[in-house]
Amino acid sequence: MLRTIFFKNKPVIVGTSSISGPKEAKGSIGSYIKMKLDDDMFGEDTFEQAETKMLFYAIKDAIKESGRDEEQINAIIAGDLLNQIIASTFSVRNFQTGYLGVYSACATFTESLTIGATMLDGGYMENVVCATSSHFSSAERQYRYPLELGCTRPPLSQWTVTGAGACVLSKNGKGPKVVCATIGKIVDFGVADANNMGAAMAPAAADTLLTHLKETGCEPNYYDLIVTGDLGTFGSRIFKDLI
Amino acid sequence: MLRTIFFKNKPVIVGTSSISGPKEAKGSIGSYIKMKLDDDMFGEDTFEQAETKMLFYAIKDAIKESGRDEEQINAIIAGDLLNQIIASTFSVRNFQTGYLGVYSACATFTESLTIGATMLDGGYMENVVCATSSHFSSAERQYRYPLELGCTRPPLSQWTVTGAGACVLSKNGKGPKVVCATIGKIVDFGVADANNMGAAMAPAAADTLLTHLKETGCEPNYYDLIVTGDLGTFGSRIFKDLI
Repeated sequence: MLRTIFFKNKPVIVGTSSISGPKEAKGSIGSYIKMKLDDDMFGEDTFEQAETKMLFYAIKDAIKESGRDEEQINAIIAGDLLNQIIASTFSVRNFQTGYLGVYSACATFTESLTIGATMLDGGYMENVVCATSSHFSSAERQYRYPLELGCTRPPLSQWTVTGAGACVLSKNGKGPKVVCATIGKIVDFGVADANNMGAAMAPAAADTLLTHLKETGCEPNYYDLIVTGDLGTFGSRIFKDLI
Repeated sequence: MLRTIFFKNKPVIVGTSSISGPKEAKGSIGSYIKMKLDDDMFGEDTFEQAETKMLFYAIKDAIKESGRDEEQINAIIAGDLLNQIIASTFSVRNFQTGYLGVYSACATFTESLTIGATMLDGGYMENVVCATSSHFSSAERQYRYPLELGCTRPPLSQWTVTGAGACVLSKNGKGPKVVCATIGKIVDFGVADANNMGAAMAPAAADTLLTHLKETGCEPNYYDLIVTGDLGTFGSRIFKDLI
């Protein structure tokens, strides 16, 4: 059964926004980030509240950038890495739109984009916000150890992004178009090391890309850029080996 | 902006399955449950593993009931109440289909049904599995206290279902049809008591039903049954008062 969805009407990304902590702002994609924070606490008391505030900013600003009003948004499709995806729910609480919560770990944003594009392409909605967030310090508490414990980080450990991103997808407008989406499946090689997420994710990323190329009939050089969720240095190497 | 999606082709529920623990089997809908367990551990070592096994059973059996092969399923859309929706991911790991993880607490199943119906109705997929699970003992550990602590349960506390359900949605076939879906929004009255989930959920449930009736133009007596996620005795009373 095909895992790729081809969009007939090609929904358009009409507005985007992003926000990050200071470390990300200094990184290789720092110049593309719209709002760069000096302090990753963002004036809040907890990491989770800071993450929630970042996501709220990204959604609000993406709507503004799109030239749409909040009243024109049918639904916000969002998810994050926390229990009960609380960063998403507590951010979206501030909007009077429908809400669909999604969870696919590092693939959460592409999942929201896939569902959002389907809603628009089939004519069921007019404008949808797709959004996600993470925070290094809340992710460490969630997946590994609270920072306060001062655990040593092993060499393979990655640095979860402190940041949030959102886009407004629309039926019509000017901007990049969503042409198709290949839905991933779970590929588990049995990596159970919470400090080696790249190795855990690489097999599914490889399977998704190969399935995508096969089902679309495209060659890798057709693309300007092939981007995955962050596999890290070693996960990326495994990904290339598997491919 | 409309929050209701109207399906043109009306996807069909062609197969269903359910499984529950002994308490649920003795309840008012017990006679509708397909597989009733004598032991809510289902032969596993932990509550989470038991929940995962129940969900796997429900998905597998719903596919069988639908008369479809696993190869004919485009995607499984599933979610549960646990961190990283692990019951869903560990169940779906056993299937070679696409996977979309969703999280909307007690509305998870309707969210999966909404997304699945959209995928089919727009012609993007042929067959989709929608599924969810919960387990009283894993939910207590997740949301309140591990059972081993022996905490007293206050009078308003609810009993999370030990069970799993799944259905196969299809473009064509015989069975109940999905006609439309109204997407809920977050309505927070500030209830912060983890033992009074009914009161926390009732405002959003009321808003969704009222929005649904308004946008579809239907009267309550048009329906044979109006069903919500379990609001409990007191949550249901609040729900009716709000309505």
